[in-house]
Amino acid sequence: MAADGSHRGQGAEHSACLLISCPDGPGIVAAVSGFLFAQGANIVTSDQYSTDPEHGTFFMRLTFYLPALEQTRGGFEAAFGALAERFQMRWRISYASERRRVALMASREDHCLMDLLWRARRGELAMDVACVISNHELARSEVEALGVRFVHIPVLEGERAAAEERALAELAGVELVVLARYMQILSSEFLARVGCPVINIHHSFLPAFAGAEPYRQAYERGVKLIGATAHYVTEQLDEGPIIEQDVQRVGHRFTVTELARGGRDLERMVLARAVARELEDRVIAHAGRTIVF
Amino acid sequence: MAADGSHRGQGAEHSACLLISCPDGPGIVAAVSGFLFAQGANIVTSDQYSTDPEHGTFFMRLTFYLPALEQTRGGFEAAFGALAERFQMRWRISYASERRRVALMASREDHCLMDLLWRARRGELAMDVACVISNHELARSEVEALGVRFVHIPVLEGERAAAEERALAELAGVELVVLARYMQILSSEFLARVGCPVINIHHSFLPAFAGAEPYRQAYERGVKLIGATAHYVTEQLDEGPIIEQDVQRVGHRFTVTELARGGRDLERMVLARAVARELEDRVIAHAGRTIVF
Amino acid sequence: MAADGSHRGQGAEHSACLLISCPDGPGIVAAVSGFLFAQGANIVTSDQYSTDPEHGTFFMRLTFYLPALEQTRGGFEAAFGALAERFQMRWRISYASERRRVALMASREDHCLMDLLWRARRGELAMDVACVISNHELARSEVEALGVRFVHIPVLEGERAAAEERALAELAGVELVVLARYMQILSSEFLARVGCPVINIHHSFLPAFAGAEPYRQAYERGVKLIGATAHYVTEQLDEGPIIEQDVQRVGHRFTVTELARGGRDLERMVLARAVARELEDRVIAHAGRTIVF
Amino acid sequence: MAADGSHRGQGAEHSACLLISCPDGPGIVAAVSGFLFAQGANIVTSDQYSTDPEHGTFFMRLTFYLPALEQTRGGFEAAFGALAERFQMRWRISYASERRRVALMASREDHCLMDLLWRARRGELAMDVACVISNHELARSEVEALGVRFVHIPVLEGERAAAEERALAELAGVELVVLARYMQILSSEFLARVGCPVINIHHSFLPAFAGAEPYRQAYERGVKLIGATAHYVTEQLDEGPIIEQDVQRVGHRFTVTELARGGRDLERMVLARAVARELEDRVIAHAGRTIVF
Repeated sequence: MAADGSHRGQGAEHSACLLISCPDGPGIVAAVSGFLFAQGANIVTSDQYSTDPEHGTFFMRLTFYLPALEQTRGGFEAAFGALAERFQMRWRISYASERRRVALMASREDHCLMDLLWRARRGELAMDVACVISNHELARSEVEALGVRFVHIPVLEGERAAAEERALAELAGVELVVLARYMQILSSEFLARVGCPVINIHHSFLPAFAGAEPYRQAYERGVKLIGATAHYVTEQLDEGPIIEQDVQRVGHRFTVTELARGGRDLERMVLARAVARELEDRVIAHAGRTIVF
Repeated sequence: MAADGSHRGQGAEHSACLLISCPDGPGIVAAVSGFLFAQGANIVTSDQYSTDPEHGTFFMRLTFYLPALEQTRGGFEAAFGALAERFQMRWRISYASERRRVALMASREDHCLMDLLWRARRGELAMDVACVISNHELARSEVEALGVRFVHIPVLEGERAAAEERALAELAGVELVVLARYMQILSSEFLARVGCPVINIHHSFLPAFAGAEPYRQAYERGVKLIGATAHYVTEQLDEGPIIEQDVQRVGHRFTVTELARGGRDLERMVLARAVARELEDRVIAHAGRTIVF
Repeated sequence: MAADGSHRGQGAEHSACLLISCPDGPGIVAAVSGFLFAQGANIVTSDQYSTDPEHGTFFMRLTFYLPALEQTRGGFEAAFGALAERFQMRWRISYASERRRVALMASREDHCLMDLLWRARRGELAMDVACVISNHELARSEVEALGVRFVHIPVLEGERAAAEERALAELAGVELVVLARYMQILSSEFLARVGCPVINIHHSFLPAFAGAEPYRQAYERGVKLIGATAHYVTEQLDEGPIIEQDVQRVGHRFTVTELARGGRDLERMVLARAVARELEDRVIAHAGRTIVF
Repeated sequence: MAADGSHRGQGAEHSACLLISCPDGPGIVAAVSGFLFAQGANIVTSDQYSTDPEHGTFFMRLTFYLPALEQTRGGFEAAFGALAERFQMRWRISYASERRRVALMASREDHCLMDLLWRARRGELAMDVACVISNHELARSEVEALGVRFVHIPVLEGERAAAEERALAELAGVELVVLARYMQILSSEFLARVGCPVINIHHSFLPAFAGAEPYRQAYERGVKLIGATAHYVTEQLDEGPIIEQDVQRVGHRFTVTELARGGRDLERMVLARAVARELEDRVIAHAGRTIVF
């Protein structure tokens, strides 16, 4: 887990993270850092990136410490809003004391699901798991044993719309959906209505082996590395902006079954890293790619 | 998990693994493969290594398939024993249908412990967990929820000998002990009496940062990679033959706490790989080092 | 460089490597190892693999030491040929004392070319470089400074056939052709007539980003790793059996130019490893994939 | 090569890099970014790090673009000097249009040496190689073929002081010394007088296997990974602040010779990355460790 630069440690009630994007131009850093200094904030970390200093888009992530932040949020946000307007910024602020409400969706395979639940319980992932939704009953007892609500929503042939409707009802108020090996395709309508980012893990090094049975495809092509890719879900299947990828060496002795088994560790590591970065407000999707601070 | 070449798949009741070491010399491979052919066995995988073709030691691992093996074990072993004597072989045979009895020992940190239990339950590790021994009560409910016996053996100052005595009683009949972040030093007497291999995970890239608080040592030295090492336990602390190691990139932003958190994934992966190889009879310790087939 | 198990060290004049493939069935290992024992040979390393013990194909690579091998080659090969016929083996033998004649082909970029020449000169690659063929003059002085013949064969529009004819004339007697960033497509006719394996380096993790400008494609897709793939050249561009692949982490700050620069180290390492394995007779192409011992 | 965020591309004559360290406290980022904005500079990249927001040390690296920078350097530096004094900053500025003068020192092994010279020639390393100093004559013709001055300074027993005196004379005006497998120990007096950073490559994963023959030590300990470490040279041998490290998997089949051969690629990659980061002003040594932006 990339734990560096987290703003959720000691003194969390006084810490926040600001994520900004706007048209690039002179004076942005000076204005933002001057504003924070004037508010009495101490900048802890700062990252920035510009697609092009002329006519490009500018991105910035700042974490800062501000005593009495709990009391002054409203005023702080109003004041920053004024500055943001001047630079045509899109921005969001998150407070280290507030954890995101996350829903996990899975199918038969539970290695990614259980790994995320475990990390949440250990405090490695700053999230509250609102519920687990699965189209199979298999993981119920293990999920409930960890005190997490389990919702079984079967997806029958020709009844996907109804199943999605039920899922959307469960997802009200959720701020992030993680598809932890959820093997159903979500409709455009679902994505339009869910109202929060959706992260998926695909068990290949995308764009290689998109679609069904990537380990079989990998076996047949005879690749020497297998991969896993965590990405935002968009309407185009397996084509959303990539957050994180990794690979693992394999050889001619691996059968399709052994590739799948060997890939499990990879899948859960890659997904956990992507979710951690999302929860730390490190990821911005832009023009089909991601900036990961 | 390195799953290739396993002999524990389909037809497991007819499969076996032979691990051999002997003084090197001409004709060993011919004799062994001729013997197996004569017995009607089909060699599935074969690995060999010699420290030196002249006057060195020769090592060999064979997996083979032999219809009716279940019925003919006694005769097979007697016949091979005669051949083995001729070449002064040390050898052991394991049958794919028999799983090893393994005990896990842990202290406060449970990430390695739970990871091994989880893999065992999914069938990724061919072992039966006889019990979990811990000097803390913390993991009891989780371990028992998986149907595994949990034994709390506190280690009080000045009473290590008594604690080890209790542990030895629990370990009777166990074929492998895995120290999954067990933070107590085991005495030479314990190691002499336990009667089976003991594998430990050390949270550094040995021989760097042996001893206490390796992540603190790593922080202070300013290394750019942290590591984990799985090794056989010998009387010399942290000096036993190394089975598996791996590393992970870190940077100047990591605090000691963040190094420890980041290292957890590494520790559990490295330990799981070492245990898998041990269970597949792939590891031979020789002259302070290991051959890993 | 995977240097383990090489048969080209001390006593090279007495060492050889046997590479075998045949229909799988009982008794092959026993027959081969029995034959070598009877000839007085000492097996140094042995690897085997079967696509399926029943009705599959069996592959084996043995290196062995045989005093007086220099004198007895003819007899040895005739005797083994008889055994081979019995098992319907395809086989080849190579002698550690004989180095393969290799031709390198390159275009503008010379990092892979110079790296291979350099490794050859240091003795890391057991080959004699017959010549370097390029469709550009750029690398002439550097190549000739290393005492290697440089042949400039421009490839003009519409005159590929003539250029290939010239190249084929230069390649007479060559046992391996390495395309070290040669940016021309070779015709099926060329491949049919060249009479030896052709290895190419493609600057992506195939099958992702086949075809032109892979670093631009990688940039546009926003991948978090770039790759390189060494493969045998077949009629289908970028679809030949893969010998070796590797990847390297990149991020959102990399421009297309920086990806290309960062990929150079990857390309030369991957190509050098593939060539080394080919020269050590470790690679067998089978059914569109490779076995790499 | 980590090529991201370089300030030495197009428009290099208008680009610069500012590296700052000072006691941490409020308002530093605001002051620096406000200063650059007032000067008409556009910040291209910015990194910062604090050992501790209270009473710690603050580090910052900025690259920026300033039209007419060539003409206004003197005024710019004077103005920034005033600001720097207010915050008790240590700082240095480098201009993308100026390349550092670097000397390389090597002994018998030339793989690191030739790799750096090659990269310099290809434009991958923004440096001018002032000279190569070696205690052996071996590499002369190759170095001179690249148009670089070669100075042979033998180090005879008991005459190290005289040899160092000669080397110091050659190194006048040099801004960085790179020990590219230079196998002589440099005296404290030499380090005190050389007046610029000295970077060394050690062929192990420090702190493991410091001192002589690290590959032999690695072999004897039976490690499963070999490493290389680039570090600043200090009076304590092999104990200077680490800039970069990497590792490579090995196994029981590797002899000491094969470890050394396999490690060459690692050594040249690790050293090249460390030198690139130093040349891009990304590295600050502090309290025995490094911050690498």
